[in-house]
Amino acid sequence: MALIVQKYGGTSVADTDRIKNVAARVAEYHRRGDRLVVVVSAMAGVTDKLIKMAKDITPLPSEREMDMLLATGEQTTIALTAMALEALGVPAMSLTGAQAGIVTDGVHTKAKIKNITPRQVHALLDQGKVVIVAGFQGQTPEGQITTLGRGGSDLTAIALAAALKANLCQIYTDVDGVFTADPRVVPTARKIDEISYDELLEMAGSGAKVMQLRSVEFAKKFGVVFEVRSSLNNNPGTIVKEETKDMESVVIRGVSLDKNQAKITLVGVPDRPGVAARIFRTLAEAAINVDMIVQNVSHGAASPTTDLSFTIDKPDLPKAEKVIDGIRKEVGIKKVQANQAIAKLSIVGVGMRSHSGVAARMFDTLAREGINIDMISTSEIKISVIIELAKADDAARAVHAAFLGS
Amino acid sequence: MALIVQKYGGTSVADTDRIKNVAARVAEYHRRGDRLVVVVSAMAGVTDKLIKMAKDITPLPSEREMDMLLATGEQTTIALTAMALEALGVPAMSLTGAQAGIVTDGVHTKAKIKNITPRQVHALLDQGKVVIVAGFQGQTPEGQITTLGRGGSDLTAIALAAALKANLCQIYTDVDGVFTADPRVVPTARKIDEISYDELLEMAGSGAKVMQLRSVEFAKKFGVVFEVRSSLNNNPGTIVKEETKDMESVVIRGVSLDKNQAKITLVGVPDRPGVAARIFRTLAEAAINVDMIVQNVSHGAASPTTDLSFTIDKPDLPKAEKVIDGIRKEVGIKKVQANQAIAKLSIVGVGMRSHSGVAARMFDTLAREGINIDMISTSEIKISVIIELAKADDAARAVHAAFLGS
Repeated sequence: MALIVQKYGGTSVADTDRIKNVAARVAEYHRRGDRLVVVVSAMAGVTDKLIKMAKDITPLPSEREMDMLLATGEQTTIALTAMALEALGVPAMSLTGAQAGIVTDGVHTKAKIKNITPRQVHALLDQGKVVIVAGFQGQTPEGQITTLGRGGSDLTAIALAAALKANLCQIYTDVDGVFTADPRVVPTARKIDEISYDELLEMAGSGAKVMQLRSVEFAKKFGVVFEVRSSLNNNPGTIVKEETKDMESVVIRGVSLDKNQAKITLVGVPDRPGVAARIFRTLAEAAINVDMIVQNVSHGAASPTTDLSFTIDKPDLPKAEKVIDGIRKEVGIKKVQANQAIAKLSIVGVGMRSHSGVAARMFDTLAREGINIDMISTSEIKISVIIELAKADDAARAVHAAFLGS
Repeated sequence: MALIVQKYGGTSVADTDRIKNVAARVAEYHRRGDRLVVVVSAMAGVTDKLIKMAKDITPLPSEREMDMLLATGEQTTIALTAMALEALGVPAMSLTGAQAGIVTDGVHTKAKIKNITPRQVHALLDQGKVVIVAGFQGQTPEGQITTLGRGGSDLTAIALAAALKANLCQIYTDVDGVFTADPRVVPTARKIDEISYDELLEMAGSGAKVMQLRSVEFAKKFGVVFEVRSSLNNNPGTIVKEETKDMESVVIRGVSLDKNQAKITLVGVPDRPGVAARIFRTLAEAAINVDMIVQNVSHGAASPTTDLSFTIDKPDLPKAEKVIDGIRKEVGIKKVQANQAIAKLSIVGVGMRSHSGVAARMFDTLAREGINIDMISTSEIKISVIIELAKADDAARAVHAAFLGS
């Protein structure tokens, strides 16, 4: 009799019919004898509707009241899901994040889980009930309602699985699992059966929209094995777990493509200590997230200068240009170049550690396609390149074919 | 510096613009230096929408989950109202019923308030904040979310006013106060400046849609003086309080009309002990609410029979006829007559205790209008008659003119 934590996202519970489908699936597991904790998100669109109402009231609603408002979204879903289960004859009870014992810090709209005391969850499970828990929310030790920010429902599920020592944590979504590449770009992409936390982290960090990083980080930290699978069929999904030896037999786990980046190059930056720090501190203070940073060797012996390139999220570009312009004279930057027509292509795999020549093979593949590489950045299990946006899809297909077959 | 509890119903907070209006009014009181606790209902239509979703899931959702679901309605409004106040520069904080310390019994969907421990409300007031409390909801000592049933937000406001020893409790609605009659029926109806709890109870119990009985009963029990007034203007409303001597100078406080009743007459009911009890117990078990009951003297010396008439809510008529039919033979009822085309006309006033001939004057007025009286029922401060539905409005106007002027 396994204890399973299941999580269903907003599209899986988008309307009452879909909630009934979720209930039917949960009921099946229940009949098999499993003990179930089901974490649900707000119905798709509900959170946006609540945010719109808040913005109608005031452009800058307080975060404390936003949490009070947004927490209603998941509370609605848990009640409806519990009703749907009861209608199928399955004993069920819903719990808000607070009732489920999810205690967070007081950073409203992006609270961190401090601890979970799932006393009520245990009690209900012992009564033979399916427990439906509101994702995305918790409360402070003082009883203030908080929300966990983007991807918060995944985090609720994984944290509950850790606290309950669940046998399995299933993250239900609208895709069959994690793929070797985005199937819309690479038609030959395949579902991955098993992937390590680190690989998934690198894939997600490289633009594959699988899960929020911090849920995966949390799972890694607490060793929670979870499965990403579809709520639309019964296919097995992708198991995410600690790296095992045999994972290295596959050189590359997947290819990911991020078309949402822009590149800024600062030409002729004085190459002296503190300059780079000054630039990136200024960007950080403006809440601009910098991804790749490449600095080339410097030119000129007397007063050496260098070129500094970095990538940021495309929507941040106007703000970044303004911020850089503000410190340009002071720092002594000669020229600022911006380019939105770029993409970041990454290959990820723990296997590359034990296989040499992976980078060469990737660059070679791109060269044969006539694709120029603009920037390169590598980590232990990832190689990322910045290329021209127009050739990004071709590049992804070529690299996928080279490493993962076609 | 007065402590005021204000309550705004669903139509007063129906959309974000109206919520802003409510906030503007609250801000005015705040600037005057008053300390404010504001109780709000769900936005008009929201509760019905939630109920519809629940019914889409299952025809008979559990009441525990209905409470979990419905409680989100008020929670949405408190957050938006607090935001609207903050946008006006007024420090505010929202509290759910549970957070406000409203402890109820465990009878879901119609819980009773057991006690209020408004520790957080006091703390926030002491910080100079306007406290926004979700009406209609509370939690059990075990932490289960409950709702108080119909009119629950009024009850929240009045119970909070009692617990906080507020100087004033204002119930904001879409009418100017309590009227001497329904202005849609009696154009000469006037707003009543002051009314006693008992008069309001009798008015509401006779069909005047002012407030739910139990909120008034609660206010009477705890001596909470409250004002029913409009959220659409600044006119003073109707003060509801304990009866005072000078209230008796007015013979009749108001006229009320209930067109939502049906009458059942049981002809030839054996006049022996236990028969009436059997009939009304059966109706009660079927959850049919009986209002007026009239039994005439019996006929026949050997085996005396009587006619028994009673009124019920019109929608309950089919169910009531079925229930009566089920016990008809056993009890020995000769004939069952039902009539939906009736209305109950009542006059209410503590003054009638000290003025004789009030009933005679009412009956005389109706007689002069050619209106036949079908049933009569009296209490200490109320006289009700059942009359023909078609003549109900004429009757109300005539009686209002006779006692309250035209």
